[in-house]
Formats: sequence, structure tokens, C-alpha cells
Amino acid sequence: MATKAKIGVLGASGYTGSELVRMLLRHPRAELVLLTADRSAGKQMRDVFPHFAPYDLPTLVAIDGVDWAALALDVVFCALPHATTQTVLQKLLAEAPKTKVVDLSADFRLADTAAYAKWYGHEHHAPELQKEAVYGLVEIHRREIRQARLVANPGCYTSCAELPLIPLIKSKAIDLDEIVIDAKSGMTGAGRSAKEAMLFSEVSEGFNAYGVGHHRHMAELDQEFSQAAGRPVTVSFTPHLLPMNRGILSTIYVRGKRGRTAEDLHAILEKFYAKESFVHVLPFGQTPHTRHVRGSNMTMIGVAADRVSGRAIIVSVLDNLVKGASGQAIQNMNLIMGYAETMGIDQVALFP
Amino acid sequence: MATKAKIGVLGASGYTGSELVRMLLRHPRAELVLLTADRSAGKQMRDVFPHFAPYDLPTLVAIDGVDWAALALDVVFCALPHATTQTVLQKLLAEAPKTKVVDLSADFRLADTAAYAKWYGHEHHAPELQKEAVYGLVEIHRREIRQARLVANPGCYTSCAELPLIPLIKSKAIDLDEIVIDAKSGMTGAGRSAKEAMLFSEVSEGFNAYGVGHHRHMAELDQEFSQAAGRPVTVSFTPHLLPMNRGILSTIYVRGKRGRTAEDLHAILEKFYAKESFVHVLPFGQTPHTRHVRGSNMTMIGVAADRVSGRAIIVSVLDNLVKGASGQAIQNMNLIMGYAETMGIDQVALFP
Amino acid sequence: MATKAKIGVLGASGYTGSELVRMLLRHPRAELVLLTADRSAGKQMRDVFPHFAPYDLPTLVAIDGVDWAALALDVVFCALPHATTQTVLQKLLAEAPKTKVVDLSADFRLADTAAYAKWYGHEHHAPELQKEAVYGLVEIHRREIRQARLVANPGCYTSCAELPLIPLIKSKAIDLDEIVIDAKSGMTGAGRSAKEAMLFSEVSEGFNAYGVGHHRHMAELDQEFSQAAGRPVTVSFTPHLLPMNRGILSTIYVRGKRGRTAEDLHAILEKFYAKESFVHVLPFGQTPHTRHVRGSNMTMIGVAADRVSGRAIIVSVLDNLVKGASGQAIQNMNLIMGYAETMGIDQVALFP
Amino acid sequence: MATKAKIGVLGASGYTGSELVRMLLRHPRAELVLLTADRSAGKQMRDVFPHFAPYDLPTLVAIDGVDWAALALDVVFCALPHATTQTVLQKLLAEAPKTKVVDLSADFRLADTAAYAKWYGHEHHAPELQKEAVYGLVEIHRREIRQARLVANPGCYTSCAELPLIPLIKSKAIDLDEIVIDAKSGMTGAGRSAKEAMLFSEVSEGFNAYGVGHHRHMAELDQEFSQAAGRPVTVSFTPHLLPMNRGILSTIYVRGKRGRTAEDLHAILEKFYAKESFVHVLPFGQTPHTRHVRGSNMTMIGVAADRVSGRAIIVSVLDNLVKGASGQAIQNMNLIMGYAETMGIDQVALFP
Repeated sequence: MATKAKIGVLGASGYTGSELVRMLLRHPRAELVLLTADRSAGKQMRDVFPHFAPYDLPTLVAIDGVDWAALALDVVFCALPHATTQTVLQKLLAEAPKTKVVDLSADFRLADTAAYAKWYGHEHHAPELQKEAVYGLVEIHRREIRQARLVANPGCYTSCAELPLIPLIKSKAIDLDEIVIDAKSGMTGAGRSAKEAMLFSEVSEGFNAYGVGHHRHMAELDQEFSQAAGRPVTVSFTPHLLPMNRGILSTIYVRGKRGRTAEDLHAILEKFYAKESFVHVLPFGQTPHTRHVRGSNMTMIGVAADRVSGRAIIVSVLDNLVKGASGQAIQNMNLIMGYAETMGIDQVALFP
Repeated sequence: MATKAKIGVLGASGYTGSELVRMLLRHPRAELVLLTADRSAGKQMRDVFPHFAPYDLPTLVAIDGVDWAALALDVVFCALPHATTQTVLQKLLAEAPKTKVVDLSADFRLADTAAYAKWYGHEHHAPELQKEAVYGLVEIHRREIRQARLVANPGCYTSCAELPLIPLIKSKAIDLDEIVIDAKSGMTGAGRSAKEAMLFSEVSEGFNAYGVGHHRHMAELDQEFSQAAGRPVTVSFTPHLLPMNRGILSTIYVRGKRGRTAEDLHAILEKFYAKESFVHVLPFGQTPHTRHVRGSNMTMIGVAADRVSGRAIIVSVLDNLVKGASGQAIQNMNLIMGYAETMGIDQVALFP
Repeated sequence: MATKAKIGVLGASGYTGSELVRMLLRHPRAELVLLTADRSAGKQMRDVFPHFAPYDLPTLVAIDGVDWAALALDVVFCALPHATTQTVLQKLLAEAPKTKVVDLSADFRLADTAAYAKWYGHEHHAPELQKEAVYGLVEIHRREIRQARLVANPGCYTSCAELPLIPLIKSKAIDLDEIVIDAKSGMTGAGRSAKEAMLFSEVSEGFNAYGVGHHRHMAELDQEFSQAAGRPVTVSFTPHLLPMNRGILSTIYVRGKRGRTAEDLHAILEKFYAKESFVHVLPFGQTPHTRHVRGSNMTMIGVAADRVSGRAIIVSVLDNLVKGASGQAIQNMNLIMGYAETMGIDQVALFP
Repeated sequence: MATKAKIGVLGASGYTGSELVRMLLRHPRAELVLLTADRSAGKQMRDVFPHFAPYDLPTLVAIDGVDWAALALDVVFCALPHATTQTVLQKLLAEAPKTKVVDLSADFRLADTAAYAKWYGHEHHAPELQKEAVYGLVEIHRREIRQARLVANPGCYTSCAELPLIPLIKSKAIDLDEIVIDAKSGMTGAGRSAKEAMLFSEVSEGFNAYGVGHHRHMAELDQEFSQAAGRPVTVSFTPHLLPMNRGILSTIYVRGKRGRTAEDLHAILEKFYAKESFVHVLPFGQTPHTRHVRGSNMTMIGVAADRVSGRAIIVSVLDNLVKGASGQAIQNMNLIMGYAETMGIDQVALFP
């Protein structure tokens, strides 16, 4: 039997943490040896997530007491709140420089630390680590990721918008000044902290936009789209909250450039993703539902013609906790460790 | 005590029909004397809608046997499926020409019968009645409605988009060629017919777009926007289905014209609707939730600046069964009958 | 026009408080002059409940600063957390002895202050007020309520179980030692405080029992059932949480005594409630859905025969925020003030 | 690599069919070679279940044209509607007598064909096959299943009630005449046929009992409980529908016999299931949520003391589509084929 990678999950008491544990428990090359939590340190996973009651898992411990050198982990998944990760990883990588890290927070996603400071309101605490961080959208940056020690796992909204748009931008097929991204997310994207606005009775049987005109994921979109375009790109982006748990759907309005029709855009995407395991482009004119990817690492993309001449409507979906977070993180781990890219994350969507 | 209007509801076994009955049961000037249904003719309302069990209501009858002249109804609400209404109303108004009609179907919404034929695939069966039909969006066409015998109650999606956009178009404040309407509706908008795609297990915990690039409500939008603009207007419009019962939210992307900012657009709407009972414009930068209008006849509108310079994002909400259908229909009845406009439809939203 | 009662709502920032405001805004004899809140003092209702944005309402104030004598309120609704009400009402009724109070907390529901101390873990702070408190289940205690100054509005679970069971117990028709009440409630019954277990993602798409074997509502059931029976009664009662907002359904398993069949039990209930506006007994064999009473003050009761000989299954439903709390409270106010019992609370259920 | 079993799924266009396909696609020893459907014959699985779009699957065919002898399937899963299976299997097993069958319908669950005739209203069409059918509740009948050619997979409600109750009945630990089973199921248990009562708008935000006093699953409960007891047992059983997709929760009220306490009952269950992979007994006093088993083959059981002396409350949960149907069916296949019992069905629950 092949050896297993020794794995740590930092922040295992949140939804992306538990989702990592769910999949890693069944990953053939993973051995969970460290789970950390803050307020729940000392507890068992079954105390904070009773669905793990039947499984043996390491006791949750506080990060502060971890001896990184002694543990000599192969891979650490970092699912900590934004802005707390930078100093944690500085220490970890200083003490255990051979450990690979996949960070699920936003802390290392922006290559430009000035942009980080602007959007997050404080200086970046680990600018030297930022330099080596690789943006972990596998289908776009696969080659760099294989060599990386520190991967910045992309955001859920951004993955859902970047996967359909980056190939079109790279192909110079769409007008860069008229992109509108109307994005809708299930509630797990908002995390597990107890806030009134996230109570069942405040969320169910209702729908709303939020962060209209300003949302931190925009910085990530700017970076990736501008890099793909070779010039600054600014899009209209509005996030909304759906009364459901899992799933993001982005409705994207674009205008073809130089005569490109909706069919042309569809052909570009179909070709770009022809060999990918986790991106599926539907036949022209069909658009996907979030329920078609629930619990899976799949992204589905549809393209249809708008009746406004020259414009196309693109719809993309993914499960925000899987391809939008923990599934993509394991996909990154598989690349870094040289495993088959689909290992442990090839579950078929759970429908209904 | 004031006399009561004798009321008929055609198609009482659907959701808009039952919603009319719900509100008319408590309307001080309404007396329900006729309820019709097709397959459920002969049954009681409590058989098809058990929440009416405690109330005395007329037995459901088939439309065919109704003696319109003898009944001499003051007002008929017509909540029949699209394309079935034209011949029904021809007969009704021939036999009882003094009866006023509020039609909730799409049959009389398009003034141009050629446009009707194009979008609905067959000739209009009552073109002479179409001539007298008035489009019943009260806040825009109040004066004509007061004099009307036949009011075409607007669609739910269209009401939600027209209320925020028509004042802006009339003011020549926005670019007419770049309007994007991303609309999301609760399931009751799809009616009560038993289809696999509308089963609970196919709808809950999921979200999807439909009719991408082509949806009949577009014809209605074209008509009203073009009339307001004095020139043809074609918008991008994408409807989506939400895993909830009631509520439509439209996220509308516009570009200010001749230097108009988002604040300017907000001021136009605030002034336009200052005295309206059923349209509430939120302070600049705030956007409404569908849950803030559930079960009420209220529309709420918010305006925020987009970070893309010169653009604004408008969010509007209403309850598709109330202001988007039956509440607006009763508002039209109140106008026609000379009652206070808010009579019987001033319920406060049910939250949560 | 008839004079209006001057009304205060203590604890207006919770769900039962907002539900009182929703209905009182449209009550013909009510004038809202005082709204209190704790952490939200100084805010407007629209800040804590945006669905009230279109309405003019008093600013939320802290209870401590209220001058009860000067205000001279006719009626105060007290929707404060359990255990905080006793001292508030002592002060209020000392300063304004003519004010009538309907208390929606559990503080005055148990006539026996020793039972209170046992279930709530501390001495009752206002035993002298307890003596005059009347248990406000209108259909059972209507006569006493008319004369009361202080009404203890019953709990939601208890109302739903007492309405079907008390007439049967009084008629000595069922075995008192084999009553099983399996109760299921929507989430609004749990209130509006931000707790992890009440987050949308922890609640939706799932179902669970809680407080198995021990729940404070049992004390109230014991009191009312024992009083009706003239001897101590202890029932099995298990509450559950439903992934929905409003509604309680109780499935009640009983055994007929002295040959009473399920039909006999049905006949007793039908007769007992024949003239009631807010209790509707369905035909034998039919059972109600929570959705048939949503947003209304109606209780529906159904009775069916169990296949186990001699046993019957009773199903009762109500909206926990209306008949289970605020609607019943206004029904109590109507009695105390000599208004028509149905005034302001006769809304038809909102379905779907 | 080990050889794979050639598998057929009859009725692949329903929810239990698609759930079989979901799991078998990732089962290391399964090869899907036949998928049948009735109205959807000729279509691809992606046409009826778009979440299968990324996978290669056999085209759906009609059952009538299948050449069972030529196909020589190792295992057939039969997920056809009740009453249609008997003749299908007669033909199949006549033509291909070596094929093993796991039937998910109710057609072969009742050993007594007279009981079948009584509950289902017609004679059993394959009484000779009924004789060899084995009731497929693995944890209770494992030994017989290993030898079986035809396994009757148990119902979802019955599995959820039998797993906690059969060990207690066998131990003579509870009173057999006072068992009350209050059961609640998610909507997928009702299947995928388009009925008004199953529409999203008729189901969401509501809860109801159904089949009160009479439900076909009772026959199955009678059979298994009576067999375990060695005497006839009749229980009170009431099913309810939850506004959610997956999960059954049974709240079971029992009385200990001969001084057995709730703790004693818990100890019996804990011991009985100590070595099982798919039944997890929680610590005494804890009760499970349906969300803790969603998408997994796990059953969780909790036991608590009732405050009524001598009585206990048992709560059990499972996913009706997995352990309540398709997961258990694959567990049966694993036994029949001599595979590891957990193969392909060891997914961790998907929470949230």
C-alpha cells in the first residue's frame, strides 16, 4: 500500500474545515494527524460536528501549542478566518520549511500587497511569503501549482466567475468594459459564526443582494482578469444570498468582440475545458443548476445567446464548499504531492 | 354600511385565484358571488385549498354555465391560463357590458396584436377588446385605469422591473442600450400545475436560470420601456427560480446618461414615488430583501453606486402573488370602483 | 370614530414583538405609542425590522426610562425574555395600576410559584402579582380573562396541545395515563437570538428532537391538564424543530376511556368548538397542515382512528407566532377591552 | 485488478434509481451495463438527471426488450413502482436464473402472500418467488442474505423503526402493546412523479401527517416485530412529510418491561450494534439529527428517559435514499457477492 501523506487541518471547526475532513477521511493517500480549533480546542470533532460521531479523529487542539518541526506534516490546509493566517504560516514554514500549505483564506490571494492593504485595511504581515504564493485555480495555473510550497486557494465567487471568463478574456473574444457578473451563493459561503442575519428565520423564504458595489472578492477578480487581459479590467459584480446551503450560480453578461457570437464563445470554452475532469461545458443553449453539482467538485458552464444582438449570457455553477473551497484545496494537494488529480474528490453530485 | 361590489373570480383554483379570495374575503366593499374552476368545478374551495376550510364561499362552478347577464357582476377578476381569456371575456362583456374586468393573464397586455401573435404563436382572438384594454400598472397609468372597463394586470417580473426603470427612462437619465435585468422569482410564479420540474425535491436546495435569452415577459418590457422612451428599447433580461414560495428580486444594471450619478437616479425615483402607498424607495445605498414585502402589496426599491464609474445598481422587490398579481388587481379594482386605493390590500408584510 | 386604546409593546425587537406590531398597525382600535427594546434602544423599528420601513412607528426606547404614570397606557404587551418580566410588571402596575397587561413570557403562567421555582430554578419575584394573573387560553378561560388586569398568554406548544386535549379531559373521555404528544415547531419559536444551532445552514434540510424528556412547557401542560382532570396528569411530550419558519403541529396519541371511539372524541371536540372563530375542527378522518394556518390566528384540529383498537390520533396545528403568541395576545386584549374578539386578527392564512 | 460485477438498474429514472447509479459509478467492483426506464427509454441519463452530464452511462432502454440470458448480469437492482416488479422478476429469473436480484419495491417484502393481498388489494403474482425472497435488513438478517438470490430491500420508514426496536423486542425488554412510532420523512421518500401535493409551493414552509391510522408500511412492521417477538405485535405508526429532501426521523415511545429502565434499553442497543459499520448508537441521553446522516449509509440511534416513569423515548435517523433504500441495496449486493460490506457505500455524511 502506498504511503500516506500526514495532513493537518487548521480551523477544522468551520464549514470548509469539516468539508476537508469529510473528503480526507476517504482519500486513499491522506492521514489526518492534526486538527486545530480555537474556541473548541480540547473537544472532539463529534462535539462540534455530530455527523463525525462514527469516526475516529484526532482531538481538536489549539494552534499555539503545535510543534511544527516535530510533527513534520506533509500538507497543511489552512481554513482560518481572513487576516489571521499570515502570522500562523510564517511560524509554521519557519519551523517546518518542507511542509506544503494550501491556504483557503484570502490572505495570500492578492499578489500585490498594496492591493491587499487597500481592500483589507491593514498592511500584509508576511509580504515575503506572499512572493512565493501561487494562486490555486488549478485549471488556469496548474503548472505553477505543481511546484508551489504555498498555494492560495481561490475564493468561491471568484472561482465561479473566473473559470468561464478567463478563457474568453485570454482569447480576446469579449468586450472588457461591459462585463456584468450577477452572482448568487448558498448560505454556507457565509461561514458558521452566529450572526442574527444568518439565522434560519432571517434567511429562509427570502433572497437579497449584499455588498452592492463593493465586495472584497472584486480585488481577486481584478487581479486575475487583468492578468489574463494584459490590461486593467474592472467588472460589475453583485453577490446575493440564496435560501439554501450549497451552491453558487453566476449569471454573466458579456458582449462579443470583433463579431464573436455566443456560439463562438461557447466553442472557446468547450475547447479550453475539453480534457478537464472538473469543468463540464454543457451543449450550447443549455444552462446548469446548482443542484447538479451539490457535494461534488464539478463546475458546470452553459452559454446562450442574448436576444440583444452581439451579447451572450453565461451561467456557471459550483458547490462553494467543494470546488469553491475544500475540494479545490484537495485538488491542489493532489497536484503538489504528485497524486492523481481526481483522487478522493471524484464524488458524483448528491441529487436531490 | 356602504354597498358591496358583487365580485367574480375566474380561475379560483390557482394561486393567483386563491390569493384574490384571501384578500377579498377581508375587503370591506367586496362580496364574493362567483368562483369558477375547470377540473375542480363542483367542489368547494376548501377541497382545493384547505386553508379556506373555516370560511363560507360559493361553490366552484364551470365558466361555461355562467349567466353573465343574470349575475350582473360589478367586477370580474380573470385568473385563467394564458390564451384562454380572450374568448371568455368576449362572451362575458357581450352579455354583461357593464361589468368591469381585471385580467391577470397575459392576454391583453400587448397593445400591438402583431407583437402578441409573434410572442404567443397565434392570432389574437379579441382584437377589438384589445383596443380598449388599459395596462394596469397603477403607479404609471393611474389616470387611464380609472376610466377603464378592461384592465390588463401586468406580469410579476415586468412590474418589478418597470416600477424602477420607467421613471428613469422617462427622465432620460439612463443609457437605453445597456440595461441588464437579472430577475429572480419564487416558485409560486410558476403556478400550480403538476410538473416534475416543480416538485419540491427538484427545486429545494438549488437555483437555476431558465428561458435564457427568450422569455415572454420581454414583450411586455419592450412595450412599456419603448413607450416611456419614445423609441424602441431592448433590454437583457434573465429570469431565475428561487427555492422559496413568494417574492421577486430584480438586480438592474444601468449606466447614467449625461453625467447622471447613482445618487441622481435615486433622487428621481424618490421624488417620483414620494406619495405612493405601495412603492417605497429606500435611502441611497440600501437595498431591499424579498422577505420585507412577503404577503404585502408593497414594492421596495434601492439604488447603489457601482464601482464601475458612471454605473448604478438598482434592486427592486415585490411579492409576485400580491403586487405582482392579485394585490395589484385589487388596487386596479379599487381605482375602477372609486374606492380608496389601499382598501383591503394594506396588510403589513409577514416577516419572518 | 371610536377612540383608540393607547398601546405599549415591551420587547418589540423580537419576533413576537414585531408580530404584535404587524397586527396592531392594522387594528382599528389600537394606537401604538410605546415600543421598547434593550440593545436596540434609540433605533427605529425599520432598523431592526426593515419590513416596517414604510410605516411611521415610535422610536424604540429602553424600558428603564419609561414614565408609566404619565403615559397612562391602556394596554401593555410584554414580550420580554423569560424571567425578566416579573420585576418590570411590578413597577409598571405599581405606577400605573389601571393599565392592563398581556404577558407573552412564561413568567406568570404557573399559578403555583413552587412549581415555577422548580422548573425555572429561582424564586418567583412577584408572587403577589401571580395571584391575580389569569391563564390566557381564550377558548378555555374566556370568562376569567374578561375581568383580568394581568393575563399570562400561554406558550405556543402548550396552546397547540391544550386546545384539543382539555375538552377531552374535561369530558373524561380519554385515559389520562397514556397521552403521548409528539410536537413539531417552526424555527421562529426559538426566537431571534444569534446562536450557532439556529443558523440557516444548521437548520435547513434537517430535522431533530430536542429537550427530550424534559422541557419547560411540560409544567404548563401539567397545570392545565391536571386542573381539567381534577387530578394530577403527566404526559409524554417531545418537541422537535422543523426546517421552516412558522407553524406547530402536534400529533397526539390517546386511548378512549369507557368505550369511547375516535368518532366519539371527534364529536366532543366538534361540539365544544362549534361557535369558536379561531378553532376549526375538520371532518372526521381529515388532519390539518401547518400551512393551512400560516399567518392567521386559526387553530385546526383533526381526529382519526388508530388501527390499534380503542386508540385515536389527534393532529392540531397553529401558527406559533399568531395563535401561539401575538394573535392570541391581541385576542386577550380584545376581551379585556370589550372589543369584538376577532378585531384586527381575522386575517386569512397566507398560502402558499 | 479484481473483476467487476455486471450490474443492471431497472427504473433508473426515479430517485432510488439515480441514487444507485450515483454510488455504483464509484463502486470499485461494479460495472453499470444496463439502465432501464419506462417513459424515458431511449434517452440518456443526463437528459433525465442532468447531474450525470459529465459521466458516460448506458442509454436508458425499455425493460421489455432486454435479453436477460444474453446479458448474463451478475446483479440486478429493481427500483420499479410497487406491484410492477413481480412479473418482471419472474421473467428475468426464468431466463437468467443465476442473476442475483435486490428488489427495492414492496413486492417481495411480505412473506405471507395473504397479508400482501390484504394490504395491496390484489393477489401476489409470483408466490413461488416470494418463498425464496429474503428480507434485506442486513443487521438483522445478514446470514440469510448471504445465501439469497432474491433480496427484498426493506422500506425506508420500516428500516428506521426496525433497527432500534427489533433488538429490544428480541430481548423482551419493552411492553409490546404500547409502542408508538411517530415518523417524519423528507420528500424524496414520495418519489418523483408529478403530483400537485408534491409541488414545491405545496410542501415548503409547512408540515403535515398523512395516511393517519393506515399506511402500507405497517404490514412490514407487523411482520418483522411479530417475528422478533414470537407473537403478534401491532404498533401505532404515523408518518409525516418534512419540508426537506432527505432524511427520516422516528420518535419512538416505549415502556420498559420488568423494571427495564431507559438506560437498560440503551445498553441493549449499544451492545447489539457495537460492531456494525452502519448503525451508530449515541451516548445515553443524546439524540441524532437527520442532517448527521445525509448522503451516507449511516443510521444513528439515541435513547433518553421519559419523565413518565418507566418509559423511554428513542430517536433514530437515516437517509431514506441511502440506508433507507439504495445504500442498503448495495450493502445487500456486497453481501451476496462476497465483497467487503462497506464497499462503495462508506461516504461520510454531507453536512451542511
